[in-house]
Amino acid sequence: MLMSMISASAAVKIDRIDPTDWYVGMKDATLQLMVYGPNIREANVTTDYPGVAIDSLIRLDSPNYLLVYLNLKDAQAGEMTLNFKVGKQQKKVKYLLKNREMAGERRMGFTNADVLYMLMPDRFANGNPNNNAYKTMRDKTIDRQAPSLRHGGDLEGIRQHLDYFTELGVTALWFTPVLENDSPSDGKSSSYHGYATTDYYRVDPRFGTNADYRRLADEAHSKGLKIVMDMIFNHCGYFHPWVADMPSKDWFNTSEWLAPENQTAEHQKNIGTIDGVAKVNDKYLQTSYKLTPVIDPYASKVDLHETVDGWFVPSMPDLNQRNTHVIRYLIQNSEWWIETVGIDGIRMDTYPYADRDAMAHWMKVLGEEYPNFNTVGETWVTEPAYTAAWQKDSKLSEKNSYLPTVMDFAFFDRINQAKNEDTDEWWNGMNRIYNVLCYDYLYPNPKSVMAFVENHDTDRFLGEGKDSVALKQALALLLTINRIPQLYYGTEVMMNGTKTVTDGYVRQDFPGGWASDKHNAFTAEGRTKAENDMFRWISNLLHWRKGNEVITKGSQTQFITYKGVYVVARQYKGKSVMTVINGKREAAELDVKRYAEIIGETVKATDVTTGRHVSLNKNVKLRPRQTMILEF
Amino acid sequence: MLMSMISASAAVKIDRIDPTDWYVGMKDATLQLMVYGPNIREANVTTDYPGVAIDSLIRLDSPNYLLVYLNLKDAQAGEMTLNFKVGKQQKKVKYLLKNREMAGERRMGFTNADVLYMLMPDRFANGNPNNNAYKTMRDKTIDRQAPSLRHGGDLEGIRQHLDYFTELGVTALWFTPVLENDSPSDGKSSSYHGYATTDYYRVDPRFGTNADYRRLADEAHSKGLKIVMDMIFNHCGYFHPWVADMPSKDWFNTSEWLAPENQTAEHQKNIGTIDGVAKVNDKYLQTSYKLTPVIDPYASKVDLHETVDGWFVPSMPDLNQRNTHVIRYLIQNSEWWIETVGIDGIRMDTYPYADRDAMAHWMKVLGEEYPNFNTVGETWVTEPAYTAAWQKDSKLSEKNSYLPTVMDFAFFDRINQAKNEDTDEWWNGMNRIYNVLCYDYLYPNPKSVMAFVENHDTDRFLGEGKDSVALKQALALLLTINRIPQLYYGTEVMMNGTKTVTDGYVRQDFPGGWASDKHNAFTAEGRTKAENDMFRWISNLLHWRKGNEVITKGSQTQFITYKGVYVVARQYKGKSVMTVINGKREAAELDVKRYAEIIGETVKATDVTTGRHVSLNKNVKLRPRQTMILEF
Repeated sequence: MLMSMISASAAVKIDRIDPTDWYVGMKDATLQLMVYGPNIREANVTTDYPGVAIDSLIRLDSPNYLLVYLNLKDAQAGEMTLNFKVGKQQKKVKYLLKNREMAGERRMGFTNADVLYMLMPDRFANGNPNNNAYKTMRDKTIDRQAPSLRHGGDLEGIRQHLDYFTELGVTALWFTPVLENDSPSDGKSSSYHGYATTDYYRVDPRFGTNADYRRLADEAHSKGLKIVMDMIFNHCGYFHPWVADMPSKDWFNTSEWLAPENQTAEHQKNIGTIDGVAKVNDKYLQTSYKLTPVIDPYASKVDLHETVDGWFVPSMPDLNQRNTHVIRYLIQNSEWWIETVGIDGIRMDTYPYADRDAMAHWMKVLGEEYPNFNTVGETWVTEPAYTAAWQKDSKLSEKNSYLPTVMDFAFFDRINQAKNEDTDEWWNGMNRIYNVLCYDYLYPNPKSVMAFVENHDTDRFLGEGKDSVALKQALALLLTINRIPQLYYGTEVMMNGTKTVTDGYVRQDFPGGWASDKHNAFTAEGRTKAENDMFRWISNLLHWRKGNEVITKGSQTQFITYKGVYVVARQYKGKSVMTVINGKREAAELDVKRYAEIIGETVKATDVTTGRHVSLNKNVKLRPRQTMILEF
Repeated sequence: MLMSMISASAAVKIDRIDPTDWYVGMKDATLQLMVYGPNIREANVTTDYPGVAIDSLIRLDSPNYLLVYLNLKDAQAGEMTLNFKVGKQQKKVKYLLKNREMAGERRMGFTNADVLYMLMPDRFANGNPNNNAYKTMRDKTIDRQAPSLRHGGDLEGIRQHLDYFTELGVTALWFTPVLENDSPSDGKSSSYHGYATTDYYRVDPRFGTNADYRRLADEAHSKGLKIVMDMIFNHCGYFHPWVADMPSKDWFNTSEWLAPENQTAEHQKNIGTIDGVAKVNDKYLQTSYKLTPVIDPYASKVDLHETVDGWFVPSMPDLNQRNTHVIRYLIQNSEWWIETVGIDGIRMDTYPYADRDAMAHWMKVLGEEYPNFNTVGETWVTEPAYTAAWQKDSKLSEKNSYLPTVMDFAFFDRINQAKNEDTDEWWNGMNRIYNVLCYDYLYPNPKSVMAFVENHDTDRFLGEGKDSVALKQALALLLTINRIPQLYYGTEVMMNGTKTVTDGYVRQDFPGGWASDKHNAFTAEGRTKAENDMFRWISNLLHWRKGNEVITKGSQTQFITYKGVYVVARQYKGKSVMTVINGKREAAELDVKRYAEIIGETVKATDVTTGRHVSLNKNVKLRPRQTMILEF
């Protein structure tokens, strides 16, 4: 009889339910199911699964969506049957409720004991040449010669190089988004970067499968490597099904330009292509990319509206997180990836572009579910006064963001200016570092701020050059100050490039990531002498940093540049580390008497960067732009 | 018999007692008397004046000082006799206890309803040619042609021009220090600026007498003008008697260089002359002038020591405010001038160079005694993140400074950069103003921050030029944003100059301040056409601002530069003011629709700067660099 009922309801069609499955035992026992199917909006839903209650059914503007809010408070894991009934027709759907692998408290996020290694999956290594066939995807191009098209790297390529990361000495991997980006290509650019999500529950098949992602995370964990997932709540991809069939009129911000009455015939013809997206009309609003209005107490409504409600680009629709169903969908998605793949952290893209209150709500919910997890928000303004206001428990804002980690674009900015300067003037050179670290009192938690010298959106630190000496200074600081350091792939083998022509030139393929590569920087044998020198220098420092409580727990003291030399010291339980930077292109001396409050009676230190002993009973000679990390 | 006793005690000599007199009825009834006389340290002191108790006698290192701490709790006004006894010899000294003229609560400080006019007494007007004779002073030079020597201006010169200030429309006068600066001159420079105090209780005779100061204050008050006194706690003048006879070894910071054993014979020979002061030895420590260590959570001891304990210059000994007797002396001095002259505010020089805790103590004590008084501290760093930490009740510091008003060097810096730029780029031109005002959330009280476009220590806004259009933009902003505005003398008549050669060129004589001046800018007849244009423009704005609650109490809204135009709006009880700045050197239009949130349905406004009506039902045309202040 059961069989016949299911047969009788065949006319009710359900194309998908998000999340694809869920977990019992969450602190928040409620669950939003987004059900998609033709005219499913009118369905009534019942279940007799023990412990599950249907709290509410939300019918949106589109006839093809139904939001089912459940309460799983007393539910056990198992296969729940949901009964959808439209008129006299009905359909039973099985939905899996799983046990969590561990309690939320046990999910330990990345901290300042970690060093993150950021990479772009498409550009790192092509581990599985078979998933390069893009037959099922809108974008069928693959061209390693084109800086803005897909190159074929994948999760398997990352997995195959886990030992490379542990050899290097990093402890966490952050890679750019891996979720499906099923967007067409115009032949010149594509969504290889992953920031135009078209399915929040599926790894892009060109990168692998959800199972591949899980396997990568498991193997990484077994080698002591954490996984940080790049997520985007501000926008999705234009080819996400939500665009062609908007769940509700306010699912996206300022989407009026897509309404038929606001489009030309030509736009209508091209809609659903990159070309069509680009043909915006005068109703289209692009974000101003100006982030200060979000925190400006005097911001006008029009400026704030442009910043947060304008679209990032026409191909990335701006999600309306103020719609409680939207933010709930996104929150669950983040929880689902934590539970399903076991990620150890999240990097949230374009953080201030999304609605501030909704993002704070997300972080509060996630913090309650996973109190030891960590999330870093991209807060791209180069002033600590700005980024500090975004960190959890900031006194600078009446609104608590609950965001534990922010990005230190100020450090990035200052070190990249200092590298070009040959001076010890008060406001220039290494004093830029002094004069930005001094504002750490703005941060509620400086040691949970993530610093870096380059990433996928900036020029490489080396620019078009190969100034390894300046790079070592920047990295010595990055790895010894009270920050969470983040490296960018290839820094260790002197990869350079600028965005002058296109972003692709700072996102080049890691040498050796493709079977056909003649140059293989993954092995000492394959690396050039200069690459090996940098690799060993960084690797030595990373291994020294690992578990080093002077760095993770020590007090910090900095000294204004004196006779060309900038010093920042860390101290913990009788151990001291002094990072010594000759910021000028001429020889200098460390005047040891000046640093008596750190050095005390010590007469001998070890320079961590070379392993050599350094005598502290006389001034220490420094070569032009030399860096020492003195330990004693 | 009393007479004979006094006669018998003639051998006890007392040269001076600070304060010279005091007041009963203070909230803090204790009083420090600093008694100076040969070997007075050994004296015992008694009094039988009703209600006065002697709390303690403090004997310092020098034999010639005695600190007498009294409690006046139950004392009435009158002439108290203090009996000093050394061995068998004694001396009776009469000391005046006066009634206060008003309770401390009634001393109303300056607020954002005021506009301060800053001037230098030596350079403003010579009202009393007779006090130019400097026979009793170490510096006998007077030379109006020399930019760094005394020119002869005085308090009487200020008093004679009180109507000029009220005609102009300012409401408060801040003039550089008027206390005695009895320092020698080297013939090239002198202490005309007043920042090298040699007597904390005496107006410099070249400026007038204490009575002249009181008369000036009284007449100013009667015309609705407040008086702000410039004080310096960080240092005194090298020729203050404290240097030749130091009360205690720790009266000054790092004064070891003055000890005979640390000086050369040549130095010894020259001591007591400017030349001698300049001959510092290697024990001399000058401040680094680097202010960030004072708030840097990572500051090294050595950097902090150099900043706060180093001397400003060799001729300005660095007072040790950590010595409780020193700070007590200074606190009483500030109270004495409030009570004695009736000043309405204090401007504290080199604020962060003095000891932070001691200065906070001063401000706390003063705030308790005079809760409605105001003090502004010179906090010369061009970042709001810095200055905000110094304002009373800042959340940025664990230490409350209790300093109600700080100086907005950030506004000064940004407007002086913007004036040279012809762009509406996001980080340049008038967007510099946007991007600095947005950080007002750092200040506990933005409307109590004092802003300015120039002062006696900076280049004139006009530089070597006469760009009145740029100056009007700067002043329109200064006078309409939520700040306490401060003008600098001569701005209203286009005085220009830079510090390229010497500070004197930004401190030139006000034209007409000397009887022999051919050019008299105090009168409309005497001013040139350009001077009259600027005078009338500013004066009109100042009178409009007076009592204008939209400016003093209104909300503030700013708009990112749009099509070259920066707008900041104020609103209060249905009234609106929009300051409209075309920051570029080409014509522009105010796109009225963009400002709908301010303009609403209004179709007509008045441009305060011209009095003309401006129609708001179409875009408003703006000339290159034009400024409008629209009121509706």
